Amino acid sequence: MSLDVASSVVGILGGTGDQGRGLAFRFAAAGHGVFIGSRSADRAASVAESIGHGVVGLDNAGCARAADVVIVAVPWEGHGELLTGLADDLAGKVVVDCVNPLGFDQLGAYALSVPDGSAAEQAARLLPDSTVVGAFHHVSAVLLADETVNEVDTDVLVLGDDRAATDLVQALVDRLPGMRGLYAGRLRNAHQVEALTANLISVNRRYKAHAGLRVTDVRLPS
Amino acid sequence: MSLDVASSVVGILGGTGDQGRGLAFRFAAAGHGVFIGSRSADRAASVAESIGHGVVGLDNAGCARAADVVIVAVPWEGHGELLTGLADDLAGKVVVDCVNPLGFDQLGAYALSVPDGSAAEQAARLLPDSTVVGAFHHVSAVLLADETVNEVDTDVLVLGDDRAATDLVQALVDRLPGMRGLYAGRLRNAHQVEALTANLISVNRRYKAHAGLRVTDVRLPS
Repeated sequence: MSLDVASSVVGILGGTGDQGRGLAFRFAAAGHGVFIGSRSADRAASVAESIGHGVVGLDNAGCARAADVVIVAVPWEGHGELLTGLADDLAGKVVVDCVNPLGFDQLGAYALSVPDGSAAEQAARLLPDSTVVGAFHHVSAVLLADETVNEVDTDVLVLGDDRAATDLVQALVDRLPGMRGLYAGRLRNAHQVEALTANLISVNRRYKAHAGLRVTDVRLPS
Repeated sequence: MSLDVASSVVGILGGTGDQGRGLAFRFAAAGHGVFIGSRSADRAASVAESIGHGVVGLDNAGCARAADVVIVAVPWEGHGELLTGLADDLAGKVVVDCVNPLGFDQLGAYALSVPDGSAAEQAARLLPDSTVVGAFHHVSAVLLADETVNEVDTDVLVLGDDRAATDLVQALVDRLPGMRGLYAGRLRNAHQVEALTANLISVNRRYKAHAGLRVTDVRLPS
């Protein structure tokens, strides 16, 4: 049985990007208070208005402070710098990293080597007073943002070293129609989950799909 | 539509291990000629007899020579040495690597760092005259070997740089009830697929499951 997280306020750093916008829409449509953050508060406010459903735009620091749980949905290139600057604002919070460090060349996408092992582990190092969880790496931004898609058919692999925090994030995933949050290991095993996005991009190209993942043989009490 | 691979003879190096035995049983039950290889031909013969369904045991070199398509299902520790010695026997063949380089400690499984990037890429380097494909990394050995399980509910991610070879391996996967072979990228993106097995081990522990993966939103012509 999921925790009751219906009153959790969700913040999304990089909430003006594709993934962030899609998650903002889904959480707001599920009844959550949602703040999206951007470098520019004006841009955040304008994107928030286009999302509707009561989403509010702020600068990233304001978004970090306003939310109970903060999702990091920025491009990998800006990940380290952004989190370094927000360590105080994010102290004491659960921070959900969904960043995929990928490179692209003429052969498609590939996993970048990350000094800390993964984006999630980099976040954990830069945010020593937060509890970092990895999740939402594989969810199609296209499907998230498509208001005609009522249910997004995917499990979400949730990674972390703190049971209370992974339980909380799984419960948040379970608020989104079609999606199911599954614990899938510790942060030290986040790299391959992030990197697998490169494979899903290959799947999408070959099959003209918006691929997600279901883990088979896992039955949860409901 | 899958290629017609019904007459392909399948060899399995390390066919006396759990994964190898399970794959041997499934391919033989699907009507394929199957050879399993082991360091000891006697041991291979005895395990082959216990599997039944016409499976034949040989030493690894004999198995490599006898088969059209050869699956590598040995422990990671012996992977490099075995393939180095079999390069000539495997020349001209499609070699399917399903080896997961993992370590285990008190916190569970974790991905090992592999100098070539992945076991599949190591195989490709050691077998310059073979065509290496990665597949079968996540299939539960327990479910494969369980004769009461009629269908193994999982997709198989197939990785490789040669379209004819990945098509062939996908078609072989499609011979196994319940399973579906999906192209999931080039060998340079094999590492994370191998490493993801550590996450599935975490899933299995948490949920008392034999987890597999389905890729959503991919519909194939049948």
